[in-house]
Amino acid sequence: MADSPFETLSEHGCFGGRQGFYRHASAEIGLPMRFAVFVPPQAAAGPVPVLFYLAGLTCTEETFPIKAGAQRLAAELGLMLVAPDTSPRGANVPGEAEAWDFGVGAGFYLDAVREPWARHWRMESYITGELRALVGAHFPADLARCGIFGHSMGGHGALTLALRHPDLYRSVSAFAPIAAPGLCPWGEKAFGGYLGEDRGLWRAHDASALIEDGRRCPPILVDQGLADSFLPTQLNPERLEQVCAAAGQPLSLRRHEGYDHGYYFISTFMADHLAHHAGQLSR
Amino acid sequence: MADSPFETLSEHGCFGGRQGFYRHASAEIGLPMRFAVFVPPQAAAGPVPVLFYLAGLTCTEETFPIKAGAQRLAAELGLMLVAPDTSPRGANVPGEAEAWDFGVGAGFYLDAVREPWARHWRMESYITGELRALVGAHFPADLARCGIFGHSMGGHGALTLALRHPDLYRSVSAFAPIAAPGLCPWGEKAFGGYLGEDRGLWRAHDASALIEDGRRCPPILVDQGLADSFLPTQLNPERLEQVCAAAGQPLSLRRHEGYDHGYYFISTFMADHLAHHAGQLSR
Repeated sequence: MADSPFETLSEHGCFGGRQGFYRHASAEIGLPMRFAVFVPPQAAAGPVPVLFYLAGLTCTEETFPIKAGAQRLAAELGLMLVAPDTSPRGANVPGEAEAWDFGVGAGFYLDAVREPWARHWRMESYITGELRALVGAHFPADLARCGIFGHSMGGHGALTLALRHPDLYRSVSAFAPIAAPGLCPWGEKAFGGYLGEDRGLWRAHDASALIEDGRRCPPILVDQGLADSFLPTQLNPERLEQVCAAAGQPLSLRRHEGYDHGYYFISTFMADHLAHHAGQLSR
Repeated sequence: MADSPFETLSEHGCFGGRQGFYRHASAEIGLPMRFAVFVPPQAAAGPVPVLFYLAGLTCTEETFPIKAGAQRLAAELGLMLVAPDTSPRGANVPGEAEAWDFGVGAGFYLDAVREPWARHWRMESYITGELRALVGAHFPADLARCGIFGHSMGGHGALTLALRHPDLYRSVSAFAPIAAPGLCPWGEKAFGGYLGEDRGLWRAHDASALIEDGRRCPPILVDQGLADSFLPTQLNPERLEQVCAAAGQPLSLRRHEGYDHGYYFISTFMADHLAHHAGQLSR
């Protein structure tokens, strides 16, 4: 397409559909951004429901398509899968690549307000606005049936974006999410860096605090491995469980013996998540 | 295990079983070698059938576990999956890493006879002997029910090892194999380098030539994408088809519009391959 607002990097036949990788000049981010889209075979007959998957620290738009094993069931259920990158890249902000848990690969799915991050680190507006609109305009996606899920930092992103944009997402789930980022080292570092020292502002980007403060979203599915090395210090699923119970927010939190934080865990329970979304989106 | 002949690099819960990565000092290769094993949940009750998967050029023991999406159905069918590396590493043979299609990452699953490769490049003896014995001794594998499959260079390896060792492998399949390596640039370079200029010797490591020369193996399943960029010059499935038809060697060669040479193709048809092996191994 000569007038396409994105460039096709590669496309691959996959389970009767197509796994593609694309790049575009993002106005919101102010830099080129990459994203991946799986189009299921059902899209040949018309727009299909679409799930946005948000990946974790250090990941890219390739992580989910390569490692999660989601395309098989998405092709059965007729779900489009969109995977954005995890942060701006190429901004050349001083120190952006010095840590693996802040800056490049660690956008935390919010709009930064502190300098020097505020210009480019606008992942919330990018995902809920620009990328969503691009997918709706140029792929056979039914944006009225849209869900969101993710892993770790991306689980945090899925929960917070579902709670902050209940008009956009009709289904939500997470694998090993950072469930209360205001209470853990990863979140304190990210929120301090991107949002500043006002912890009141932090609460607007913390899934557990958002629910405590009255926000609601569709029924949440969370899977958590009990051999996850980040569980003791970073993830706080029990905090999410407490606030959901107190608030009446539906939550299915499943704990799994012997599973760690990686994609062998995620792929094991991927089918359950896709079925959860398909069920919510068919209502 | 203090007396273990291998070191555990990592193990991960996966579909009710365990995906592990290991390293050992290989006597056959004369260097440390890595391999991956998926143990399905059925192994808790006793030894299970085992499939060896041979990967393609530039791959490692991680490629198959990460990209192929095979563990889900292997856990249903009760199949162990063993993935070796694709060559010796660390030999420091001059020029070993200068090309992506020869030397490191390109062992071609044979025993080299030419110097300077003959000392370390002994992948056939490694896979059919040392690694097989190690898996049989230290994992709950039933070596009497053993199959072999692979991709591209590893599809060549699976076919040739099945044909050369019919006592070891009761099932065989391949994704986009180098089906007649003596007739393509990859094979000519590898065979010339590892085996020398005697093309008679090449025939003993060329699946199509082996069948033409009277070797037989269990019924072969081959999947080939028609959008595979290596199909016109390197793979020669039609040659395999011709010799199998002439020889009466059972072959199911399936051609697929729109699929390329990568793991999105492989993962799409992985379930069919695992079912093929499970069927053969249950006889």
